[in-house]
Amino acid sequence: MSAQREAALEYARKNKEKFLREYKEILTIPSISTDPAHAADVRQAGEWMAAQLRALDMRNVQIFPTALHPIVYGERLDIAGAPTLLIYGHYDVQPTDPLDLWTTAPFDPVVRGDNLYARGASDMKGQAMITLKAVEALVKSGGLPVNVKWLFEGEEEVGSPNLTAFIAGHKDLLACDFAVNPDAGILGKDLPTITYGLRGLAYFELRVYGPAHDLHSGIYGGVVHNPANALAELIAGMHDSKGRVTLPGFYDKVRKLSKDERDELMRAPVDDRHYLANTGVLALYGEEGYTANERAGARPTLDVNGMLSGFTGQGSKTVIPAWAMAKISCRLVPDQDPKEVHQQLIKYLESKASKDIRWELQVYAGGPASISDRNNVGVQAMGKALETVWGKRPVFRREGGSIPVVAEMQHLLGVESVICGFGLPDDNVHAPNEKQNLPTWYRGIETFIHFFMNLKPA
Amino acid sequence: MSAQREAALEYARKNKEKFLREYKEILTIPSISTDPAHAADVRQAGEWMAAQLRALDMRNVQIFPTALHPIVYGERLDIAGAPTLLIYGHYDVQPTDPLDLWTTAPFDPVVRGDNLYARGASDMKGQAMITLKAVEALVKSGGLPVNVKWLFEGEEEVGSPNLTAFIAGHKDLLACDFAVNPDAGILGKDLPTITYGLRGLAYFELRVYGPAHDLHSGIYGGVVHNPANALAELIAGMHDSKGRVTLPGFYDKVRKLSKDERDELMRAPVDDRHYLANTGVLALYGEEGYTANERAGARPTLDVNGMLSGFTGQGSKTVIPAWAMAKISCRLVPDQDPKEVHQQLIKYLESKASKDIRWELQVYAGGPASISDRNNVGVQAMGKALETVWGKRPVFRREGGSIPVVAEMQHLLGVESVICGFGLPDDNVHAPNEKQNLPTWYRGIETFIHFFMNLKPA
Repeated sequence: MSAQREAALEYARKNKEKFLREYKEILTIPSISTDPAHAADVRQAGEWMAAQLRALDMRNVQIFPTALHPIVYGERLDIAGAPTLLIYGHYDVQPTDPLDLWTTAPFDPVVRGDNLYARGASDMKGQAMITLKAVEALVKSGGLPVNVKWLFEGEEEVGSPNLTAFIAGHKDLLACDFAVNPDAGILGKDLPTITYGLRGLAYFELRVYGPAHDLHSGIYGGVVHNPANALAELIAGMHDSKGRVTLPGFYDKVRKLSKDERDELMRAPVDDRHYLANTGVLALYGEEGYTANERAGARPTLDVNGMLSGFTGQGSKTVIPAWAMAKISCRLVPDQDPKEVHQQLIKYLESKASKDIRWELQVYAGGPASISDRNNVGVQAMGKALETVWGKRPVFRREGGSIPVVAEMQHLLGVESVICGFGLPDDNVHAPNEKQNLPTWYRGIETFIHFFMNLKPA
Repeated sequence: MSAQREAALEYARKNKEKFLREYKEILTIPSISTDPAHAADVRQAGEWMAAQLRALDMRNVQIFPTALHPIVYGERLDIAGAPTLLIYGHYDVQPTDPLDLWTTAPFDPVVRGDNLYARGASDMKGQAMITLKAVEALVKSGGLPVNVKWLFEGEEEVGSPNLTAFIAGHKDLLACDFAVNPDAGILGKDLPTITYGLRGLAYFELRVYGPAHDLHSGIYGGVVHNPANALAELIAGMHDSKGRVTLPGFYDKVRKLSKDERDELMRAPVDDRHYLANTGVLALYGEEGYTANERAGARPTLDVNGMLSGFTGQGSKTVIPAWAMAKISCRLVPDQDPKEVHQQLIKYLESKASKDIRWELQVYAGGPASISDRNNVGVQAMGKALETVWGKRPVFRREGGSIPVVAEMQHLLGVESVICGFGLPDDNVHAPNEKQNLPTWYRGIETFIHFFMNLKPA
């Protein structure tokens, strides 16, 4: 092992406490991007990231304002002959409700056992910190072996509404050999993982309107179509008895899984037991004819994310609600197009909604799915790094979550992404008691040190 | 017209301002019975009613505590040979949400045009005040011509959980010739109405549980049955394509409408236009084969009263919710039994709910439907009183709302009820901007003066 590699690993081991302290610091900032009340917090988190880049002696550090939350950029480009990596991260987080289910406050990071609990600990402040701390270890041990550019956004959890335009408008600034996106996860503490496929997303809010105002269910029950019942009927019709989505044309562009790919996916030890243990459901459910792992990564879905109508307080209130609302989102796979799915949903509603109600459909966010090339030089360097730290060949998988920026970078910058990350399936991301396993986090830092060193020109 | 009748009517006309002032006073008390935070307010409203009875020189005025809200009693029994009437009322009200849809605060009664706006203005503090003020007019004009007992409860809007036991335990105290229940409405300002049939109620809360906690819809979308989708499927299955309720056995005990009764109901001028105007829906909906008036009064229904699951805030959150909830209630007709409907719903859920979710069903409130005898002496006296004040024969109708106490009094005390009231169909009861039409309210007081006088022994 090279002296610099040794020195950097040694630095990382000696600075575990310092790294954890800074990690906790960014986790105390409630950078909830979907909530306008937290706009200043999101900005503060972005400034914190910029300060980290300056401390690492990055050049050209800038905070670009957008229509919503700022984008943070920085670079260090002085290694001749070395590849240039564009390291992506997001410093915003999901909302925290239901708050009463958190054991400790979401923005008061607490270590319990091997885990650090806080909103964003895993998704993805923890992953961004891994890249920053690995770079710090190298900077403090002789300097970076590659050229890096950083792109931190504050809008990932609201669908990155301003990122596409930013990338399109800054193609030269962001030009690189490949991107690194550590916003995916690892399948298990002992299962190093590289993700090569990501699902896309199409997110909607459907509102159904009935009477002009809430009605007494005794006086008017039996004469009007209750909008909550009507919404339930529309939602129920969105799946058939085989668990397939019924939007017209929904599966037309879905890329079929080849025998080879199904075999490779079978290597991942994510069987029914894995999903049962990580979800706590009584039994699994889904589209007939596919394994759970295939359904979660390589098949599209439709899920209700929220539903609200009428009286939801304690006790009883005998109203026919004036309206009912559902947030509904689809996870998409190659080659589905979120805009086409929007049209399919409109067609479904036009043909299924009865004429006694009125409906409105709002589009919140969307991004296509993506698949990366497994022979990319970055993917190979990351595979080797994972094998060095874990002592075993990583599993290649298709991930169910959406990282639209991967598709955008492919499309706008013409680059592949190395999709990795060190969050675990049971990290409760987007849910109460989000956590990051700390031993895995430290291994992540070591992995990134190896990854950067693996890319050093000979 | 007798001198006393004239004098009482004159008193009522002269004291319009005083009556309105006291009416507003009771409306300022936020006696929301379903909300534990308002328990003291409910009690205060009961004490206010007791004070009114004392001011009318009623005897044996008592406030009986119950496990929830108190029952107020009073009597005056010194007219030999006159019938004894048990006058029922409730001084509790529905919750006020959504508060932002009220033009003025729900407990700050305001007159706009011909209407008085406040929660409870119509349902039913306004109706209780009509009986009190009619009695006041008679007491101040020579004395009551009949014997009266009063029964005011504070739990009607939560299904009267303690009233049945109270009636069963006080049969002697409550013994009477017939009851008077002014908790029904009037079909229009110029349509004097007597209700002879009331629907019953069975109210439930259904909760569907899926994963142990909210899940990331990307990572787990496709492998678990989303409880919000599952709830929507269960609700959608509760009606067939003809608008009929599918709970097994739901219609078995429903009393068929005879040709005669359908003809009588057709007299009521409540056609589709009436229901369209009062609800504001694009088109009516309901069980095939029945008029809207029949569906609203003489046919059973099933409605969602509230629905909640997952993320319902602004923006998007990509969760699979851990649970989903719906408040569901059925309006019942003779001879359906709320307990049997509960069992039918359980059977439906047992046969339809998939094994990958868990469900829980809570019963909130219930009461059977009832039908009264149209030849009852009280009904005849009220019919005559309405005809005197309005100058036309009243319409007899079956009402869609539930007044379980009418069935209880029939069952426990063996007495019929005169079901009347002076609220209008567009009073927004149980909804924002509840109001009472004041000219109709004053006519109600005159009607009750005639009603009592019509019962005076010859």
